[in-house]
Amino acid sequence: MNEPKEKTTIVLFSGDLDKAIAAFIIANGAAAYDHEVTIFFTFWGLNTLRKEEAISVRKGWLEKMFGFMMPRGAGRLGLSKMQFMGMGPKMIKHVMRKHNALSLPELVRLAQEQGVKLVACTMTMDLLGLQKEELLPGIEYAGVAAYLGDAADAKVNLFI
Amino acid sequence: MNEPKEKTTIVLFSGDLDKAIAAFIIANGAAAYDHEVTIFFTFWGLNTLRKEEAISVRKGWLEKMFGFMMPRGAGRLGLSKMQFMGMGPKMIKHVMRKHNALSLPELVRLAQEQGVKLVACTMTMDLLGLQKEELLPGIEYAGVAAYLGDAADAKVNLFI
Amino acid sequence: MNEPKEKTTIVLFSGDLDKAIAAFIIANGAAAYDHEVTIFFTFWGLNTLRKEEAISVRKGWLEKMFGFMMPRGAGRLGLSKMQFMGMGPKMIKHVMRKHNALSLPELVRLAQEQGVKLVACTMTMDLLGLQKEELLPGIEYAGVAAYLGDAADAKVNLFI
Repeated sequence: MNEPKEKTTIVLFSGDLDKAIAAFIIANGAAAYDHEVTIFFTFWGLNTLRKEEAISVRKGWLEKMFGFMMPRGAGRLGLSKMQFMGMGPKMIKHVMRKHNALSLPELVRLAQEQGVKLVACTMTMDLLGLQKEELLPGIEYAGVAAYLGDAADAKVNLFI
Repeated sequence: MNEPKEKTTIVLFSGDLDKAIAAFIIANGAAAYDHEVTIFFTFWGLNTLRKEEAISVRKGWLEKMFGFMMPRGAGRLGLSKMQFMGMGPKMIKHVMRKHNALSLPELVRLAQEQGVKLVACTMTMDLLGLQKEELLPGIEYAGVAAYLGDAADAKVNLFI
Repeated sequence: MNEPKEKTTIVLFSGDLDKAIAAFIIANGAAAYDHEVTIFFTFWGLNTLRKEEAISVRKGWLEKMFGFMMPRGAGRLGLSKMQFMGMGPKMIKHVMRKHNALSLPELVRLAQEQGVKLVACTMTMDLLGLQKEELLPGIEYAGVAAYLGDAADAKVNLFI
């Protein structure tokens, strides 16, 4: 019988590009070391999982407002610092390309290829009015109970 | 003899409504699963524990300034994102009511009912000039040593 | 043979004065309790490790811009809240002096004296164009793999 794998969990609460990059670099690193990795997306972190194109779904007025005001997908997040009306994210993306670092959308794809479990928090999806059709394929849906189940078994648990 | 309980600790550093909600949802979830849960409130996180009414206590000029500028209690926190001059928190509170989600003050009460240990960091209380009379009843007071003692025994430790 | 030491790791992602103070108070506390402590500095957290004086190194235009816009060292960080165009950090520093609390540069020195391992993330150094000559002496340089190695052995792992 095999030894059970080490587990790592990350709650990605933040919708900032720089924090999402840090979360995915840690997650992909842990997956490369054969950890079982879960990223639990809640609140603004859910924006990382949105599809880039506008998806037509029925929703109420307030849910439409949230949907309109929040960035659609990993390619459109802003920075936690030095946003400079959008120049900061452009600079970061530029230096990442120059150093052949993976972009955030590429980091998300790599995580999915490596079997990192991407879990959208159903409670905040409800609050922000996000529907499954609006999020990337291949992700899971769960609540805080599932997160706690994974985290209680894991050695490394981060809130980002 | 009973098995010792799983332990979970959260440092709530942030004074943002959305982050405080996330912290209390995780804490209440863990308590429901019979974890022994401690939330350690430090820096702006202490504002979650302030009483809503102004409390008359003697303090210096600078401490008065801090007390005046910082929000009084869980009902008055702002958002980490989409603050929009106070409209963002109103929107979030509205959708939470609509979905029958507990408000932050209700989450705090539930945590106290479930036996979640709420600990105010005495060092930052000193720095920000907050006095015990200004904070909710039923909370504990301790320093970083007590936090580390709890955290070293816990499986899940988060900094929010 | 001695029992192995408890381990504590902190990822310091944030470049905010208040968050850096919290990180170093926890790290120094854990070191005082004889934990083996590592702080891994990434993204804006690296600014805490910058030397105060401008260091002349060759770098490209974009790296110069980053170097110019980011604060040089622990003495110059801003606050995550209540920045008030620089008045907030002055107020915090003032109350810390008044309460005989160690300043952030003093907390960094204490950490080094206590043997806290300060590790600069080489990947984000590359991205932000920071060079070893610009950072404090006595620190280590490593990537995400080294962090995960430390974190998988540690009881307390925080992302700040």
